[in-house]
Amino acid sequence: MEEQPAYLYLQIAARIEKQIQDEVLRAGDKLPSVRTMCRELGHNMSTITQAYYELESRSLIETRPRSGYYVCLTPGRRLAIPSSSSPSSKDAKGNPDDLISKVHQDSTNPDITLLSLGVPDTSLLPVAKLNKAMVHAMRSLPGSGTSYDQVQGNEKLRKEIAKWSITWGGNLNEKDLVTTSGCMNAVAYCLLTLTQRGDTIAIESPAYFGILQLAKGMGLKVLEMPTNASTGIEIEALKKALSKDKIKVCILVSNFNNPCGSSMPTEHKKEVVRLLEHYQVPLIEDDIYGDLYFGTSRPSTCKSFDESGIVLYCNSISKTLAPGYRVGWVAPGKYKDQLIRLKLNHSISSTTITSEVVADFLKNGRYENHLRKMRQTLYSNSIKYISAIARYFPEGTKVTQPQGGYFLWIELEKSIDTTLLYDQAIKYNISIAPGRMFTLQEQFDNCLRLSFGLPWTGDLEKKIKLLGTLALQARL
Amino acid sequence: MEEQPAYLYLQIAARIEKQIQDEVLRAGDKLPSVRTMCRELGHNMSTITQAYYELESRSLIETRPRSGYYVCLTPGRRLAIPSSSSPSSKDAKGNPDDLISKVHQDSTNPDITLLSLGVPDTSLLPVAKLNKAMVHAMRSLPGSGTSYDQVQGNEKLRKEIAKWSITWGGNLNEKDLVTTSGCMNAVAYCLLTLTQRGDTIAIESPAYFGILQLAKGMGLKVLEMPTNASTGIEIEALKKALSKDKIKVCILVSNFNNPCGSSMPTEHKKEVVRLLEHYQVPLIEDDIYGDLYFGTSRPSTCKSFDESGIVLYCNSISKTLAPGYRVGWVAPGKYKDQLIRLKLNHSISSTTITSEVVADFLKNGRYENHLRKMRQTLYSNSIKYISAIARYFPEGTKVTQPQGGYFLWIELEKSIDTTLLYDQAIKYNISIAPGRMFTLQEQFDNCLRLSFGLPWTGDLEKKIKLLGTLALQARL
Repeated sequence: MEEQPAYLYLQIAARIEKQIQDEVLRAGDKLPSVRTMCRELGHNMSTITQAYYELESRSLIETRPRSGYYVCLTPGRRLAIPSSSSPSSKDAKGNPDDLISKVHQDSTNPDITLLSLGVPDTSLLPVAKLNKAMVHAMRSLPGSGTSYDQVQGNEKLRKEIAKWSITWGGNLNEKDLVTTSGCMNAVAYCLLTLTQRGDTIAIESPAYFGILQLAKGMGLKVLEMPTNASTGIEIEALKKALSKDKIKVCILVSNFNNPCGSSMPTEHKKEVVRLLEHYQVPLIEDDIYGDLYFGTSRPSTCKSFDESGIVLYCNSISKTLAPGYRVGWVAPGKYKDQLIRLKLNHSISSTTITSEVVADFLKNGRYENHLRKMRQTLYSNSIKYISAIARYFPEGTKVTQPQGGYFLWIELEKSIDTTLLYDQAIKYNISIAPGRMFTLQEQFDNCLRLSFGLPWTGDLEKKIKLLGTLALQARL
Repeated sequence: MEEQPAYLYLQIAARIEKQIQDEVLRAGDKLPSVRTMCRELGHNMSTITQAYYELESRSLIETRPRSGYYVCLTPGRRLAIPSSSSPSSKDAKGNPDDLISKVHQDSTNPDITLLSLGVPDTSLLPVAKLNKAMVHAMRSLPGSGTSYDQVQGNEKLRKEIAKWSITWGGNLNEKDLVTTSGCMNAVAYCLLTLTQRGDTIAIESPAYFGILQLAKGMGLKVLEMPTNASTGIEIEALKKALSKDKIKVCILVSNFNNPCGSSMPTEHKKEVVRLLEHYQVPLIEDDIYGDLYFGTSRPSTCKSFDESGIVLYCNSISKTLAPGYRVGWVAPGKYKDQLIRLKLNHSISSTTITSEVVADFLKNGRYENHLRKMRQTLYSNSIKYISAIARYFPEGTKVTQPQGGYFLWIELEKSIDTTLLYDQAIKYNISIAPGRMFTLQEQFDNCLRLSFGLPWTGDLEKKIKLLGTLALQARL
């Protein structure tokens, strides 16, 4: 009997749909490739492709360039996205210092499931290849890397970073760059270069607690700006603040923001640079998550539109290759000479051998190859985590749907205090990041940040389920 | 005929004396061991030993414990030691920033003979053994050192440093220590912890330009104190300043000071700590050269006498093992919690793998073995350099005779401007450190610092001779 292809592809699609309904296949899972399906089922390519098209048209699966087909978020329950923040200008009475210290302290316990910190799991890192590059660096560096490097930083590394900057329209050359001991060190050097005690800086809200604590420690006033959970800082609010307040510096995490996962649309980036140029206010742009996009192309940066050198662009490989290497950098625009002098005074130079290893790794497309895999894993994780939150968290839970990076920002019902939830969860060896860590004001008490850097397992799903139950109890 | 030992040892002594007179053997040269001489000359041990005693009693050679016999400084011409400094309280009109930048910039040229910077020559470093430890660290560290280390620093390293502190009466334990990215980074973190813009710090004069520039960059006022070229800061002057001025912090390089080579006598250390305790002024002690003593034992530190936690003790392995590793530490006394928080904000953690390598190297006496050789080489170098300066530099030259470390401080006649001498010398690819780098005031224009870290060679001697000639010309 002759095959009836029209029926066949629908049969295949129905079979896959049933697997999704039965949760044999779950949100974020990768489907077998078309080629594999052909081989396994004994059908031809076009049949399988048609079946996949069918599923895609019904939003059950989605295609991801150069990676394949993935099961979409279960349409059953989609959670709302948290609303824009509206920070007041009043500082909180309490200070999240102790909370932050507690979360850090607990995180050193190896039994803890670390959903609190944005640290890449070792399984995500190309450890064997880095070790190979390390042995190579020992052989090729004069004195095997025991000598001081240039104050500005390893020249080879700066060249590779400059080449790489073309991916986000950076167009830098090695002379524009200064290496640092990670991205926070870059931000710290920028603030030390640009500010004095008592100055005011403008930043998103919620914002990465590391930057808030750094600014506070330096005696800076922090102006937390209304921020949209999807598109970042509210431009109108920034415009108003610039015209009204004496803002010395603006700090933004423009892509896949920590903690919100928000990304500024390209038009917003352009507009922010235009505004800051107008008011002659420098921008410290932290782009540490920029390479971890889930979409088809690298997002731009504010630095891409900086013509007068007011953007100090900070980045590192701490989220993509090796946090322990302490390799970061800054393109400080017109503040370069000041920043190099400051680096010399504060730490002389960067670690020679780890800089060389990263330079070596960036060469010949190895970094891009590694990132491609890492992005897929993080994307798949993000879907699985969101899906689990939708399944197990109380009614009224909102969650962001980031297009890259490491973090979900979760907004629970007003009645749930996530600092108390932390204390409950840590009893079960689960660590989360309560919302209060991400502000110096009284807000986000019902929010938390969840990192999806840990590999997805059945055990992890149980942990998220437990977290949902604890949140539910905390509401009662 | 029977041998006449009394004559024989004198004959041997006379032969060696002639070699010294003929400059076949020169100041700082090591004599063959007693055992080797026995074998070579076919005499017995006691004869050779007696010959060496004879030369020692005539101050031609000297014995150094666990190392052997060395030719003393040629008695022909001994240079005077520079006098105590007497800085005014007026700041200079000009600033040595540009001079310092020029010296740094020139130093990156590989053709330059680098007498300016205190950087250990690679030949002094145990590179092969460090590489072995690096491979070991890659194997033993979880994730091969790609992960963040503890904020306070690698625990193994802190344990080893704590053990090592017994050599200077430190009696620390690992909880007392925080690792940093080198010693200057430790000093910078101390200053960021303790001071605010506008505060006054007291320091030796001349002082290491890195600390002066750091302080100036932070907006601090620097009170340069009268300092003795042999015994360091003048206690009476410090006492007076403490009672009169509002000093927020004192910074001292207590052993083998940079640039003077001065070392505070133990009684001075005790007295300074007592004084600072009385006035409740914290002391940042930079002991980076302390392990490089030429005498029989490790000198004490101010920290050795600190009972109330006011001394913040800074050190690193940048002068002894591997500057490029960026491994340093601080024992911050009662300021520990503040400093750890500051480190977290500014750089999160130290480089994991280089910390581990240093920890590994400190174990099992390998560091001590390495230091023993390094100290002998530096001692021998110091004698050869001083000897060459005595030979080739103009009349009226004064030079320190440090008992450890890396540096000679040379005072020329008042009429010689060492900043101009720098410009002359660099034409011949020789780099020196002009005295003006080491003060923010108008002083030391006729002084320079010379590092004796480069291995002694005939070519190097020619360079020092040339330097002497240029100085002579500069006087005319």
